[in-house]
Amino acid sequence: MSDGPELSHDAFLGGKVMLWQPRVGYRSGLDPVLLAASVPAKAGQSVLDLGCGAGAAALCLGARVPGLILHGVERQPYYADLAARNGLDVTCADITALPMPLKERSFDHVIANPPFFDRAAGRPSPYSGREGALGEDTALEAWVQIAAKRLRYRGLAHFVHRMARLPDLLAGIRPVLGSVEVQPFSARPGRAPELCIIRARKGGRAEFRLHFPRLLHRGEAHLRDAESYTPEIKAVLRDGAALEF
Amino acid sequence: MSDGPELSHDAFLGGKVMLWQPRVGYRSGLDPVLLAASVPAKAGQSVLDLGCGAGAAALCLGARVPGLILHGVERQPYYADLAARNGLDVTCADITALPMPLKERSFDHVIANPPFFDRAAGRPSPYSGREGALGEDTALEAWVQIAAKRLRYRGLAHFVHRMARLPDLLAGIRPVLGSVEVQPFSARPGRAPELCIIRARKGGRAEFRLHFPRLLHRGEAHLRDAESYTPEIKAVLRDGAALEF
Repeated sequence: MSDGPELSHDAFLGGKVMLWQPRVGYRSGLDPVLLAASVPAKAGQSVLDLGCGAGAAALCLGARVPGLILHGVERQPYYADLAARNGLDVTCADITALPMPLKERSFDHVIANPPFFDRAAGRPSPYSGREGALGEDTALEAWVQIAAKRLRYRGLAHFVHRMARLPDLLAGIRPVLGSVEVQPFSARPGRAPELCIIRARKGGRAEFRLHFPRLLHRGEAHLRDAESYTPEIKAVLRDGAALEF
Repeated sequence: MSDGPELSHDAFLGGKVMLWQPRVGYRSGLDPVLLAASVPAKAGQSVLDLGCGAGAAALCLGARVPGLILHGVERQPYYADLAARNGLDVTCADITALPMPLKERSFDHVIANPPFFDRAAGRPSPYSGREGALGEDTALEAWVQIAAKRLRYRGLAHFVHRMARLPDLLAGIRPVLGSVEVQPFSARPGRAPELCIIRARKGGRAEFRLHFPRLLHRGEAHLRDAESYTPEIKAVLRDGAALEF
């Protein structure tokens, strides 16, 4: 275990999954849990988590669906070590430079929770749309292209990202995957969805489909998050339920 | 007036707009009225309707916002004649070969209701996604590019189309317009939206935004359309109300 900040041992899915995470820095929240809940994986199938961090998405998926073959890739040694400590089979590598053994494998499912642009941090946005810095847009497209390469024919990719990045994700998906479905998540009824899960199939030919937004919170006003989740989202977060779409 | 099928004289916006249309063949329905209701045009501004048909969208917009300078382009002489008879200033031309006087004008708004793939007719779908016939995809991108060319800087384009074509529209928009907003329309609560209006601004740099779906019909079951519209949609269709987003 490399040196790093103090750790906390956090419960996911009502304690079905316990993860070591840093007390400061990137901590897994809602997004990887929603991602894991959306993947229709079946026992015996293989799953690659690109940029797995401490392993939240892969391990939550593994807790819901027994008998999966899970593998994570994480660029930062600190998080790769944590993922291993949390029980995930993990390769420490940049997703754009996977080692040969991984490049020779193909997976039934690839999942990814690519880094979000952090608006709260007040950084300027070089990320949005065509005016975005080429480097960043290329990076998001690279996530999609690498996911597509590692999928077996008819395999499924799932990404979770900010809704604002949907055009960039679709641009990356268009040349390499098909049968795209988008599941938006809105904080409240009537509010523009800020989060989405994108599903796409290698070799898929079905029409694009946008699903009706799922609601994260009950009621119109914001109370405490933990208290206000809709029953559906609470079942995902606390009981490890699947999110079907 | 060229020869053609028998005409009907139909009321739009509760009779504020009366349009001659063929009794058979393409007849304007919900889509151009929703399109017209979505455009935040102001008196004195200019509006170009690409592929205006009998003029429904432009004339509904003109009925809601007085003092607009409206112009339509329609490829089929039969519909161009109808649009003129309905009171629209119209040029009979293919949008890809606009005559010079139109090419020298720029507009505050461009609107378009490009032809939908007609699933009901049971034709095979060469239109959907990247496997689609190049000709058709190019055509939809051409609509976007021609709209962008005819817009003044900071002008707005609005398109109405099937939700399934959103990735194709976004691919066309990406190089030429920004500040994209998508307003989906769902038949019922919880149903995947099948229709959308896309707004984009020339020179816009705002993040992509997906709005929460507007509902077309009340209740869970389908009765007669005319009876079941939500109050919001009824206000658009019968009273010529704006649809703000």
